[in-house]
Amino acid sequence: MTSSHNLLDIRPVTQLTNAKFPEYVKQPNSKLHNIVWRSPLQNIYLVKKPWNYSVRDAMLQFIDHIHKNYPAVNVIINEHVADELTHELQTGGGAKILDPSIKHILYTGEISDIVDKTDLVVTLGGDGTILRAVSCFSNVTVPPVLSFALGTLGFLLPFDFTTAKDTFRMVYESRAKALHRNRLECHVLSNETIRKYQSDHYIHHNQSATMVHAMNDITLHRGSQPNLTSLDIYIDNEFLTTTTADGVVFSTPTGSTAYSLSSGGSITHPLVPCILLTPICPRSLSFRPLILPSTCHIMIRLSELNRNRSIELTIDGIPQRDLRPGDQIHVVNEKGTIYVPGQHEPPTTLSKQEGSQNKTTGKGIWCIARSEHDWTKDINELLGFNSSFQGKKQYHM
Amino acid sequence: MTSSHNLLDIRPVTQLTNAKFPEYVKQPNSKLHNIVWRSPLQNIYLVKKPWNYSVRDAMLQFIDHIHKNYPAVNVIINEHVADELTHELQTGGGAKILDPSIKHILYTGEISDIVDKTDLVVTLGGDGTILRAVSCFSNVTVPPVLSFALGTLGFLLPFDFTTAKDTFRMVYESRAKALHRNRLECHVLSNETIRKYQSDHYIHHNQSATMVHAMNDITLHRGSQPNLTSLDIYIDNEFLTTTTADGVVFSTPTGSTAYSLSSGGSITHPLVPCILLTPICPRSLSFRPLILPSTCHIMIRLSELNRNRSIELTIDGIPQRDLRPGDQIHVVNEKGTIYVPGQHEPPTTLSKQEGSQNKTTGKGIWCIARSEHDWTKDINELLGFNSSFQGKKQYHM
Amino acid sequence: MTSSHNLLDIRPVTQLTNAKFPEYVKQPNSKLHNIVWRSPLQNIYLVKKPWNYSVRDAMLQFIDHIHKNYPAVNVIINEHVADELTHELQTGGGAKILDPSIKHILYTGEISDIVDKTDLVVTLGGDGTILRAVSCFSNVTVPPVLSFALGTLGFLLPFDFTTAKDTFRMVYESRAKALHRNRLECHVLSNETIRKYQSDHYIHHNQSATMVHAMNDITLHRGSQPNLTSLDIYIDNEFLTTTTADGVVFSTPTGSTAYSLSSGGSITHPLVPCILLTPICPRSLSFRPLILPSTCHIMIRLSELNRNRSIELTIDGIPQRDLRPGDQIHVVNEKGTIYVPGQHEPPTTLSKQEGSQNKTTGKGIWCIARSEHDWTKDINELLGFNSSFQGKKQYHM
Amino acid sequence: MTSSHNLLDIRPVTQLTNAKFPEYVKQPNSKLHNIVWRSPLQNIYLVKKPWNYSVRDAMLQFIDHIHKNYPAVNVIINEHVADELTHELQTGGGAKILDPSIKHILYTGEISDIVDKTDLVVTLGGDGTILRAVSCFSNVTVPPVLSFALGTLGFLLPFDFTTAKDTFRMVYESRAKALHRNRLECHVLSNETIRKYQSDHYIHHNQSATMVHAMNDITLHRGSQPNLTSLDIYIDNEFLTTTTADGVVFSTPTGSTAYSLSSGGSITHPLVPCILLTPICPRSLSFRPLILPSTCHIMIRLSELNRNRSIELTIDGIPQRDLRPGDQIHVVNEKGTIYVPGQHEPPTTLSKQEGSQNKTTGKGIWCIARSEHDWTKDINELLGFNSSFQGKKQYHM
Ligand SMILES: NC(=O)C1=CN([C@@H]2O[C@H](COP(=O)(O)OP(=O)(O)OC[C@H]3O[C@@H](n4cnc5c(N)ncnc54)[C@H](O)[C@@H]3O)[C@@H](O)[C@H]2O)C=CC1
Ligand SMILES: NC(=O)C1=CN([C@@H]2O[C@H](COP(=O)(O)OP(=O)(O)OC[C@H]3O[C@@H](n4cnc5c(N)ncnc54)[C@H](O)[C@@H]3O)[C@@H](O)[C@H]2O)C=CC1
Ligand SMILES: NC(=O)C1=CN([C@@H]2O[C@H](COP(=O)(O)OP(=O)(O)OC[C@H]3O[C@@H](n4cnc5c(N)ncnc54)[C@H](O)[C@@H]3O)[C@@H](O)[C@H]2O)C=CC1
Ligand SMILES: NC(=O)C1=CN([C@@H]2O[C@H](COP(=O)(O)OP(=O)(O)OC[C@H]3O[C@@H](n4cnc5c(N)ncnc54)[C@H](O)[C@@H]3O)[C@@H](O)[C@H]2O)C=CC1
Repeated sequence: MTSSHNLLDIRPVTQLTNAKFPEYVKQPNSKLHNIVWRSPLQNIYLVKKPWNYSVRDAMLQFIDHIHKNYPAVNVIINEHVADELTHELQTGGGAKILDPSIKHILYTGEISDIVDKTDLVVTLGGDGTILRAVSCFSNVTVPPVLSFALGTLGFLLPFDFTTAKDTFRMVYESRAKALHRNRLECHVLSNETIRKYQSDHYIHHNQSATMVHAMNDITLHRGSQPNLTSLDIYIDNEFLTTTTADGVVFSTPTGSTAYSLSSGGSITHPLVPCILLTPICPRSLSFRPLILPSTCHIMIRLSELNRNRSIELTIDGIPQRDLRPGDQIHVVNEKGTIYVPGQHEPPTTLSKQEGSQNKTTGKGIWCIARSEHDWTKDINELLGFNSSFQGKKQYHM
Repeated sequence: MTSSHNLLDIRPVTQLTNAKFPEYVKQPNSKLHNIVWRSPLQNIYLVKKPWNYSVRDAMLQFIDHIHKNYPAVNVIINEHVADELTHELQTGGGAKILDPSIKHILYTGEISDIVDKTDLVVTLGGDGTILRAVSCFSNVTVPPVLSFALGTLGFLLPFDFTTAKDTFRMVYESRAKALHRNRLECHVLSNETIRKYQSDHYIHHNQSATMVHAMNDITLHRGSQPNLTSLDIYIDNEFLTTTTADGVVFSTPTGSTAYSLSSGGSITHPLVPCILLTPICPRSLSFRPLILPSTCHIMIRLSELNRNRSIELTIDGIPQRDLRPGDQIHVVNEKGTIYVPGQHEPPTTLSKQEGSQNKTTGKGIWCIARSEHDWTKDINELLGFNSSFQGKKQYHM
Repeated sequence: MTSSHNLLDIRPVTQLTNAKFPEYVKQPNSKLHNIVWRSPLQNIYLVKKPWNYSVRDAMLQFIDHIHKNYPAVNVIINEHVADELTHELQTGGGAKILDPSIKHILYTGEISDIVDKTDLVVTLGGDGTILRAVSCFSNVTVPPVLSFALGTLGFLLPFDFTTAKDTFRMVYESRAKALHRNRLECHVLSNETIRKYQSDHYIHHNQSATMVHAMNDITLHRGSQPNLTSLDIYIDNEFLTTTTADGVVFSTPTGSTAYSLSSGGSITHPLVPCILLTPICPRSLSFRPLILPSTCHIMIRLSELNRNRSIELTIDGIPQRDLRPGDQIHVVNEKGTIYVPGQHEPPTTLSKQEGSQNKTTGKGIWCIARSEHDWTKDINELLGFNSSFQGKKQYHM
Repeated sequence: MTSSHNLLDIRPVTQLTNAKFPEYVKQPNSKLHNIVWRSPLQNIYLVKKPWNYSVRDAMLQFIDHIHKNYPAVNVIINEHVADELTHELQTGGGAKILDPSIKHILYTGEISDIVDKTDLVVTLGGDGTILRAVSCFSNVTVPPVLSFALGTLGFLLPFDFTTAKDTFRMVYESRAKALHRNRLECHVLSNETIRKYQSDHYIHHNQSATMVHAMNDITLHRGSQPNLTSLDIYIDNEFLTTTTADGVVFSTPTGSTAYSLSSGGSITHPLVPCILLTPICPRSLSFRPLILPSTCHIMIRLSELNRNRSIELTIDGIPQRDLRPGDQIHVVNEKGTIYVPGQHEPPTTLSKQEGSQNKTTGKGIWCIARSEHDWTKDINELLGFNSSFQGKKQYHM
């Protein structure tokens, strides 16, 4: 038991050098960019689905492989996983996976420190694992993401874990290609903040506290409240509509195959620069889903007419603080917005970005891709898109 | 070659005794009725998909089997098939299938004569084959229908041809069960007829000429005319709506999985007594499909505002005479209608049925069924109903 | 103040004679039945939307009108309303409405006693008011219902309160017509009950405790749990599908314009005998809404695979006890079910009804109607069915 | 009569100077561009809906207004309209509209000559009028378009004819703003062409003959053929799906509110760079509409399996030559495509554009706009987007 414990050496992530991002080189006749490391890839942040034996074993296999074959590469894990692995090695099983002849050094620390050091994110699990891994990089530049499917094939998971060795080498040797996915920004302004903001004494930068990035979607829903939600929606400072519905989803093209799809939205290729507005069970015959420009500024105000005391806000499946009548939500693409002036001012943090359509540096998520055609393959193989009605042949009695 | 020709003896169908229908006995705790022949099943009308070698061979196999095992059963075919088989046997292949040791007598004649003699319809082919077979029995009682899938599995085709021997024996021995399917009646009144009808001299029974039964659906469509159709629809003499659309489908529950489904209609169990009104590509956000009572009287008037010179009328996929602005269509269930009086009188033939909800004798189509659960199985296996998104497991590098 | 208090005399409802139901006489060429009182209408139960001044005033107007013009008619109210009116009259406003020259006697008591005495239910409010009024008559015969719209026009509310005097006279004088609406029964069997039930010692009639009638719908929903619900659905003892969705609605035709409509279901006329199964935000491209026969037996089992600890059950908008993995729900039409035997036994209370398609006496809700065409008018005027795209004419500069 | 004829002087359009296009100046915080004439606007092409008295009178009013107030501006009309006006002035009515004190010079000629001279297109009529006006500018740069609604309000028609004087002045004085709309290119390759093309001797530039631009949409439909169309669709040289359907629409965002909407597509803002692929009545439960990147290359091959002899191709509502099994259609945005190499080569004309994402000069249609918010207003006012269910208040008996 002591020996297996000694296998693992957990060190503070702060000891590592700061993150260095690769270059993303546009290719002719291609939807993808080449990922080129100008200085060698050093720190990888390994993320997994929690509490699952098979996934834990897969992670140990991956760590072992890295340590043996890429001695210069440092593996970072979060503190929960560090505890889990330590405990696991003390009690048994995992020990068989890790090669005892070498010392396995892992780095951990606070999320904000991990974020500062990570050159590449590697996820092992399902779509939820990648969503939660990426959510740590809200408000900062996201390193490239390499995702392996474990357990369930997912829509955001191009690689099968059985290919992990070859795939990692391809990434390491700057032979990988990546698809660029944009995120949405969700700015929450509480009723009280808005009131203060309208008075002179308001200190503007406080508002930034409540901005969160979404890879998939931002959802407002009645949750377990029985009554329908009433939301006033403005696009570029013009009143669009009031929803009387279970809720509404604002989705990236990436998220178009998640909740938006279930609610009746169109399947949207990740390279279409747009924001999907899809109603959830609207009490209206004519609330068709909308595809809005990625440059638009969406403002949602929770009508004071809402009979529900609170409305649920969920970002990429992660519940946020409940909203109350009077609160405002501003949704924009992280690349910035053409802000068309009018009555409903965006929060200061957001309005600083006005007109700044060139905010492309360091924006979005670079997801390492299998091929040009991952999307076409996935909507067919995973979603069963346009699957034809069956027919088999039988000609003899 | 002469011998193979002599194998077949084609006789006039008029020589056969008139059709005798079985009794349909309701079973407790069942959706199906037992089909009981009070006097033995005698004349079967064998129908097939035209111009297909495999289906022709299957038909010959079936004929041979009947002639060998049920000497008292007469096989009827239509004149085209009689020609096809005669030609085939003269030129070769089929001869190998028919047992040369017995004389194969087949009956044929005009469709109206075939209709008078048929105790049981047996179809070999696809859904189109059963629709076309049943359409011969428009305006008269339909014999029970036994359908075998050949080539493609169909929604109206419970039996696989590989089970043909056992299945036929079950039917012959009164051990089969049948599902009752209702048809719609489509009454067409041309603009001129309506004008005459509104004058005194009109001879009413002339109208009956244009009534056709539908097993699946009655469709009005712009066809290849570029402009949208404008149809005024009345339910029980009350104005419902004007469609501006490619067209509209009036469907039985049986037809709910055909064109209505493609146009966005709900999947409806054949035992729900209703008429589906499903718009085809309506220029409106709020034209949701409707489920109407089977007792209702639907009247559609082709608005004089139509810019198209003609509108296509199709019944069960079979094109009818084109309609013109001013024409009227009346759609009712063949079991009769609660006629609610008002401005738009139904045609005389139809109004004779007013209030007559008891017109059940001899109405509808009795389709021999595999089991209680054919429908549940079929929407899963044939339509891929609610097929889940994929997921396979892969845990090792 | 004393005088206004004395205006009102609240007496126990138990003093009244027991309810006597009218006869419902079928009319030729009509979708409606005449309501004929064989002995005069005596006890009316007046129900209102709570805590709304205008509705309270309307109720007082109605009470005053009855007391002045129909001295033999007794007005029943529930205990909360009795308190509210007493308080109101003590503190002011209402006193102006009630005629002080006559003594206003009102009857109240426990709901079960009110149910025993009511000849006619009169509702003042919205659709929610009628749903809640009718829910008191779960498990018993529902008296005819006369509904007045107050505040919002509703789909279940044929009469405008401005017509209340004439409308009530019409009902009183047996000149009114009614539409028959069927309800669904929802039987809940908890995991523990099922286990007991499978052992010998189970006392069967205990189960009946958890049966509730639905006028609109029975909804299963994830509520505020983040994860999708997984429900196994069986129709007539045959496996239909497993839902991976926010939830599912089982709706009457009456409820087809409520939650089912918002979730994508078809609009269904109340006279179509069917059960609508409409998924709520399913994770599947192919989960089309289903229209099932009213005779079917639906069983839903909460899969043990559900990651959510609980699932919300709501009937006609009224939250019920949360469900847990392993629990079973049985949904049938109150008129009974063709029960097709198999593995999943219905609860004893329900199985007593097996095959009993003649359970029509005293079933369903008779809703007093304006005309034959209420439904056609309402889907146009209230839902804006198939509203056409706009066009106005402007020809001059 | 002679005098009214003399009013009009019709001259050859070739006498005019060649077209000069304005500059389109991007504004901060705006979705629109300013239209700035570097040299004064000279030649306007006036287009109208044919055969409508009111529209003809409106046109004469507009001509009179231009001639009186903008003597340097030349009015161009097409030859049919020239005939119509000449005939009209000879026979009466219009004479009252044109001021007889000035000579009214109009220019006409062949469409290709008109195209060469036009600085600004002005349309009077409906959406069809603008679609047909713009279709003359297929394959060439489109001048800015100013559209007035006459008769029906249309989705592509921002201005009411009552504002024509002020609106024209605004345009003339470089105070107008325009929205940029992209078109699609439709390249048709017949079966024979493809065969030739695959042999060496093929002369490539012949192919360009069959390219047409679409402002709204490119539709493939079975038309009046009874059988479903079978189309193989490839995206960027990867097989996407085979449609079994009435047809399919490829739409610009502009066309998203036309046929695509009727077929179930999402409403898409004109500034979203994308191509909508919307199936028309597909025989599949899972053929959800797709939103594809504007850079993609779509290839559709008419499967030889099609039982229909021909398939209809319609562009912006204008029927094209019918297609036959074996034919290929290539659909790309006029701005060019990222061409991903593979088996299905695009036609030579198209492949010349490969990778050329900077082809923006002179591409697309600049439509003069009322305000930033035309789209939001129009989907509400014209389409009745998310119109709420009704409710009026009635509180007194
Ligand atoms: N009724 C529905 O369809 C609901 C969907 N969601 C979606 O779940 C997402 C969160 O995912 P998890 O944390 O895994 O929650 P989860 O474990 O509840 O799973 C949701 C499902 O969505 C899939 N998924 C996630 N992102 C996807 C994408 N971009 N494309 C296709 N499929 C995707 C996952 O693989 C999983 O099967 C949210 O962003 C939201 O879009 C959340 C609630 C209800
Ligand atoms: N876009 C569409 O979906 C269209 C559908 N149709 C349907 O085709 C029917 C005629 O069928 P065919 O003569 O075989 O024409 P067809 O050979 O053009 O085939 C139509 C398809 O519908 C299937 N089908 C027919 N009846 C069905 C039912 N009740 N349930 C499920 N699938 C069914 C057939 O098996 C075949 O796959 C019409 O009654 C109409 O409902 C007709 C035109 C267009
Ligand atoms: N997203 C949605 O559309 C939701 C709908 N509901 C529906 O609300 C019903 C309960 O109603 P309330 O107590 O008034 O709740 P509520 O006050 O939350 O209102 C629901 C709305 O539905 C309307 N409504 C109720 N029954 C109707 C019917 N049969 N046809 C047309 N409209 C109808 C009401 O007038 C009201 O506008 C439930 O039975 C359920 O069907 C419940 C939750 C969500
Ligand atoms: N079922 C349907 O909805 C059909 C629609 N169409 C559409 O009609 C268009 C041609 O228009 P017209 O020559 O006027 O034919 P049309 O006179 O048959 O009218 C079609 C209708 O579509 C409207 N429309 C045209 N373009 C529009 C747009 N971009 N957004 C919103 N509404 C629009 C027109 O105002 C008119 O009301 C085609 O491009 C096609 O998209 C064509 C056939 C069937």
